[in-house]
Amino acid sequence: MPDDPGESSIIETLLSRRPLTDGPDPRVDAGDDVAVLADGTAVGSDLMVEGVHWDERLSPADVGWKLVAVNASDLGATGARPRWATLSIALPRPVDTEWISGFADGLHEALGIFGVRLIGGDTTRSPGPRFVSMTMGGPAEHPVRRDGARAGDRIWVTGTLGAAAAGFHHGGSGLGWLRRPRPPVSFGLALAETGIVSAMMDLSDGLARDLGRLCTASGCAARVDASALPASRQVAAAPDRLALQTAFGEDYQLLFTAPATADAAILALAASEDVRVTRIGACAPGAGTHLRDGPWPAPTFSHFGGDA
Amino acid sequence: MPDDPGESSIIETLLSRRPLTDGPDPRVDAGDDVAVLADGTAVGSDLMVEGVHWDERLSPADVGWKLVAVNASDLGATGARPRWATLSIALPRPVDTEWISGFADGLHEALGIFGVRLIGGDTTRSPGPRFVSMTMGGPAEHPVRRDGARAGDRIWVTGTLGAAAAGFHHGGSGLGWLRRPRPPVSFGLALAETGIVSAMMDLSDGLARDLGRLCTASGCAARVDASALPASRQVAAAPDRLALQTAFGEDYQLLFTAPATADAAILALAASEDVRVTRIGACAPGAGTHLRDGPWPAPTFSHFGGDA
Repeated sequence: MPDDPGESSIIETLLSRRPLTDGPDPRVDAGDDVAVLADGTAVGSDLMVEGVHWDERLSPADVGWKLVAVNASDLGATGARPRWATLSIALPRPVDTEWISGFADGLHEALGIFGVRLIGGDTTRSPGPRFVSMTMGGPAEHPVRRDGARAGDRIWVTGTLGAAAAGFHHGGSGLGWLRRPRPPVSFGLALAETGIVSAMMDLSDGLARDLGRLCTASGCAARVDASALPASRQVAAAPDRLALQTAFGEDYQLLFTAPATADAAILALAASEDVRVTRIGACAPGAGTHLRDGPWPAPTFSHFGGDA
Repeated sequence: MPDDPGESSIIETLLSRRPLTDGPDPRVDAGDDVAVLADGTAVGSDLMVEGVHWDERLSPADVGWKLVAVNASDLGATGARPRWATLSIALPRPVDTEWISGFADGLHEALGIFGVRLIGGDTTRSPGPRFVSMTMGGPAEHPVRRDGARAGDRIWVTGTLGAAAAGFHHGGSGLGWLRRPRPPVSFGLALAETGIVSAMMDLSDGLARDLGRLCTASGCAARVDASALPASRQVAAAPDRLALQTAFGEDYQLLFTAPATADAAILALAASEDVRVTRIGACAPGAGTHLRDGPWPAPTFSHFGGDA
């Protein structure tokens, strides 16, 4: 979950000097949130920092839950089944055992729901805020990259967009999604297995930014119909609806593309998996992402800690 | 690299509630620093926090190097070949590009030396200190646990003990090992392949603590000959030699046990791999670790940040 564009470039700088070794060549590379090793093992990492990724609106149990959920979201969006995880945490001293206990409660609840086994980790003292980092892995039999979208493909999303944003800015029921996102991991796997999606990723940083990444990776443009973006009742009624749905993030829904010929199969699969899917636009020749109804709202959010 | 005994119990608490899932059963469990999945993939994580695991005596390049080295050390001590790694980092804003560049230099130098490919990661803002976490994995064809030592087994270490401690407390050449440890990863693999070692782990937290862990896991006692502990010239001349060699940590050497019948094979392998090995004692019935020449020196070190 990078929290500003500069961070992506930092890690790209670090990664770009990848040495030539006899190690396995990832089949899905670092441009994606998850790498898939030659043996089909998918591996991804997500990091959450107190004051950046959470504040007092999230309980310790919510933080534990969310760390698992955001990692599982990345894997599911690659078509990988989450199986194991390692946890690294840095905590201030003296240790707050109540915090640890709550964190472990939420962590294990989510591990159980997503079918993930915690296999190890590392813990140390933090002279600053709490840091929690997870690496999650599992088999990807049919990995999907974000760079396969082609002009003419339809653009789809799962669920609704903007719920966590509404919770963050306006409170209410959206806080539930902000605290305990439920990414559609199984549906991501099912979509990947069909072989009908041309590109897929999860929505963690807002539709505008994430769709931009998908288009850049794929070498195509996107045209999105703002009025088609699926919204909960709270989000639909908000005056800043479009900003909530495109410029905030924390949706942990799937963004995927597929040829028009796949429409019926996608709708049938979504019905059978009881997942809402919505066609929000189409890929086009060229570059850039365009809203049919005007400009993208400016990003207003850099996580809980204000500007990054 | 846990930095105080309380931390081990924290992570054990977190891990103890591991849910029952249909996930893979690790063959080497969380009592070890590295877990080995059913498919033979070994995975471990190590975390370093500025002000706790390093201070101004380590350059950014040293930090990058060391993060790779300590992870590779864990894998090698399990008999696993380091192959891939993910990196999660949290950095203060504004981004210090000079720091990043130096860190990447050391990181990639070590990745190249240990034959590891960086496959992904996550980066974010830190409102506090720098935080760097790595998860490393690779195949373990002959994994070795720390719980197989038996009464009568000989206790061995590689290299010398106390070099990093001497560098930390007294400066001098030991600073080189503190900054850029070179764990004998290949020798760990070679030992594991022979099948002659009964238990193995790396020395990260000092001989007294780490040998205690090995004995607790194995259900045996240990008797160590203080005068046998291998020392560099600087350490041998230090008035606090025994404390440096047993109570500090950061050795990143191998601690292993084997039946007496394996002595010749171990010495031959060490000679062929050009690694120094020293027999420092033997396992005995009972529990606890005992120095033949008196009590263990009290731990005086809790990393760079003072008491944990």
